[in-house]
Amino acid sequence: MEMFKVTKVCEVKEIMDQNFSSYDLPSETIDILNAQGRILSKDIYALENVPHFRRSTVDGYAVVSADTFGASETLPAFINLIGDAHMGEHNQSHLCSDKCMYVPTGGMLPEGADAVVMIEYVEKFQDEIAIHKSVAPKENVMDIGDDIKQDQLLFTRGTKIKAHHLGVLASVGITDVDVFVKPKICILSTGDELIDPKEDLKPGVIRDINTYTLSGLCTELGCDVIEKKVVKDDFNNLKDTLKSFIDKSDLVLLSGGSSVGTKDMTPDVINALGSPGVLIHGIAMKPGKPTIIAKINNKAVLGLPGQPASCIMAFRVLGEYLIKNLLHLNTHEELFLEGVCSTNIHASPGRETYQMVTIEESSDGYIINPVHGKSGMITLISRAQGYIKIPMNKEGISVGEKVKVYLF
Amino acid sequence: MEMFKVTKVCEVKEIMDQNFSSYDLPSETIDILNAQGRILSKDIYALENVPHFRRSTVDGYAVVSADTFGASETLPAFINLIGDAHMGEHNQSHLCSDKCMYVPTGGMLPEGADAVVMIEYVEKFQDEIAIHKSVAPKENVMDIGDDIKQDQLLFTRGTKIKAHHLGVLASVGITDVDVFVKPKICILSTGDELIDPKEDLKPGVIRDINTYTLSGLCTELGCDVIEKKVVKDDFNNLKDTLKSFIDKSDLVLLSGGSSVGTKDMTPDVINALGSPGVLIHGIAMKPGKPTIIAKINNKAVLGLPGQPASCIMAFRVLGEYLIKNLLHLNTHEELFLEGVCSTNIHASPGRETYQMVTIEESSDGYIINPVHGKSGMITLISRAQGYIKIPMNKEGISVGEKVKVYLF
Repeated sequence: MEMFKVTKVCEVKEIMDQNFSSYDLPSETIDILNAQGRILSKDIYALENVPHFRRSTVDGYAVVSADTFGASETLPAFINLIGDAHMGEHNQSHLCSDKCMYVPTGGMLPEGADAVVMIEYVEKFQDEIAIHKSVAPKENVMDIGDDIKQDQLLFTRGTKIKAHHLGVLASVGITDVDVFVKPKICILSTGDELIDPKEDLKPGVIRDINTYTLSGLCTELGCDVIEKKVVKDDFNNLKDTLKSFIDKSDLVLLSGGSSVGTKDMTPDVINALGSPGVLIHGIAMKPGKPTIIAKINNKAVLGLPGQPASCIMAFRVLGEYLIKNLLHLNTHEELFLEGVCSTNIHASPGRETYQMVTIEESSDGYIINPVHGKSGMITLISRAQGYIKIPMNKEGISVGEKVKVYLF
Repeated sequence: MEMFKVTKVCEVKEIMDQNFSSYDLPSETIDILNAQGRILSKDIYALENVPHFRRSTVDGYAVVSADTFGASETLPAFINLIGDAHMGEHNQSHLCSDKCMYVPTGGMLPEGADAVVMIEYVEKFQDEIAIHKSVAPKENVMDIGDDIKQDQLLFTRGTKIKAHHLGVLASVGITDVDVFVKPKICILSTGDELIDPKEDLKPGVIRDINTYTLSGLCTELGCDVIEKKVVKDDFNNLKDTLKSFIDKSDLVLLSGGSSVGTKDMTPDVINALGSPGVLIHGIAMKPGKPTIIAKINNKAVLGLPGQPASCIMAFRVLGEYLIKNLLHLNTHEELFLEGVCSTNIHASPGRETYQMVTIEESSDGYIINPVHGKSGMITLISRAQGYIKIPMNKEGISVGEKVKVYLF
């Protein structure tokens, strides 16, 4: 019934790379405290060494290590104590042989010292200490740049900033970073049967779901959903809205209604707006077969299925890929968890199958259950915790088979 | 050297439950489009059925199923066509035996029809159709409430709202939800050697890291970090700042400096502010042994280690637990992934050991490598992708052993 030629998912990704990888998102400079979840638009180098002075890693006595060689319980080394170093103070003392200085954990070593003896191995007298254990050069010392070296590459462009990055940046005095401006997304849902969830319900119409789930997914990915709208399946209306959305955003998501003729109308509307227009219509995946990838004014338009669960799944496979590429995100692979399938799962021949699943913890690890239900059910997706991917050349998954689950 | 009695991690969690589980965060009503990542403060019930009319799941002909019984390629059933249903329209027709009506996918069934025959199995003539295959009652029909039933419990209090929840809420016309107000957090870092990252560096001082990493972690958990500050190790200064922080927040995080005497000063400062004051000082975990749990004015104060990596680890184990409890989060268990350890990992006897690790993908699954480095290194945590937990009664992990990794 469907006449379009389908393209393999891996080929679709290549075509998206070719068409959109040179798309330039602008960059902005922000305080790192607001940078959580944002993506670095430039490599970051350390401006200074960490630590930038020699620190003791223990409470103890800074010494010239050679003075302690051969020291033992029975034959301690006696060394003159010249004073105490204080936390946070510039230690301007200079040690020479047979002298030592007390240094707390994190305190600055005096010049000349090359190791610290832990207080546990020291007996203290008035002006001298007895050392019961030798220390090697650099023992209990964090040297300049041991943690971070000046000019070292800290994080590359495309890094998603998390809590621990903030710590590293703070440690070298970087409190502003350059990040990509959040991609601007417009979302359009079409269908004569759709109303906005705030409207009154009448027989025959249903509430729009897809602009909400897609908004949520885009927000999770660090995008800015600047406008969303439900429109009827009218060629000119659809064309006008789509045009204004393309003009004001970096990416337009369009989720097709299910009314007769819409499936054919959407590519025509897109093609009417410019070239190259529709790049792909029909993808060898289930769900998501009727997905459209288009390019107008150098911008991407992603036409997703109207069924809520199919729409989410196709977005996760293709929309996420596209957005992560726009953001130059450098960790493309998602982590998965592994579990054992509780039942046989059927796959569609000639298509990559994405099966939504629930995850159950057992003493032997995770048990994976497919989520089934009638096509179009929104509760399908609300019950699922992740999905598994069944390759094109595989007939299905057998009960007891180990599978990788990608989490929602 | 450290004199305090240590408490087991599981006991610490019990004590936190006893002391803080009745703490009431206020609730607020917000638009679901802003609700991503927020926590529901009330159970949510469906206000209506989804679908709220009988929908066809295919393009086909609505029929009285009994009319098709026995129909086959060789002996089709001939039925009168009375018209077409249109998407989004209230279908007010009534079918009786020997009549049918065209209904598109998602369209409303007429009264009297109880199944839909797919167009693939139908030959159409002017005023009638020939049906080549029988349909069972309810076949290709989504009944009223098949997806969601009116008054059904959709989501419980404590649910963290994600994209798919937005879709379900939209589907039943719920566009506002009650969520807990974000917990207000103040963060205090103490140490004579600490300066704010924006200040000029001098020998002997280091830049504060912990208020930044803790801010990031709290933000990730959905908290509002309302103030953060670095203070010197001065009893009165510390006491005044801590008091004002307790007054204005739901939870205070305090990360101890490493200067001499601070370890003893912090509990005294806390106890000087009210009772019961310090509940726990000393926890059977590594890192994180000197962690403090305190209660003043019914509010929690969490005293974390000063070492950046230890601070993050102790926060993840105890601070996260506390915040998730304040928010009544109903999915407490974090998902883990499993891998095989690349090397032996040593554990500390009598303590729960939290070892930071990196995760490497191989053809056989994940390979887990411990992250090592000198104590106090911030780069320890920036290299780690997660951590493994070694129970108190286990001496360590052997090379090749399967471990669970909790992700950062």
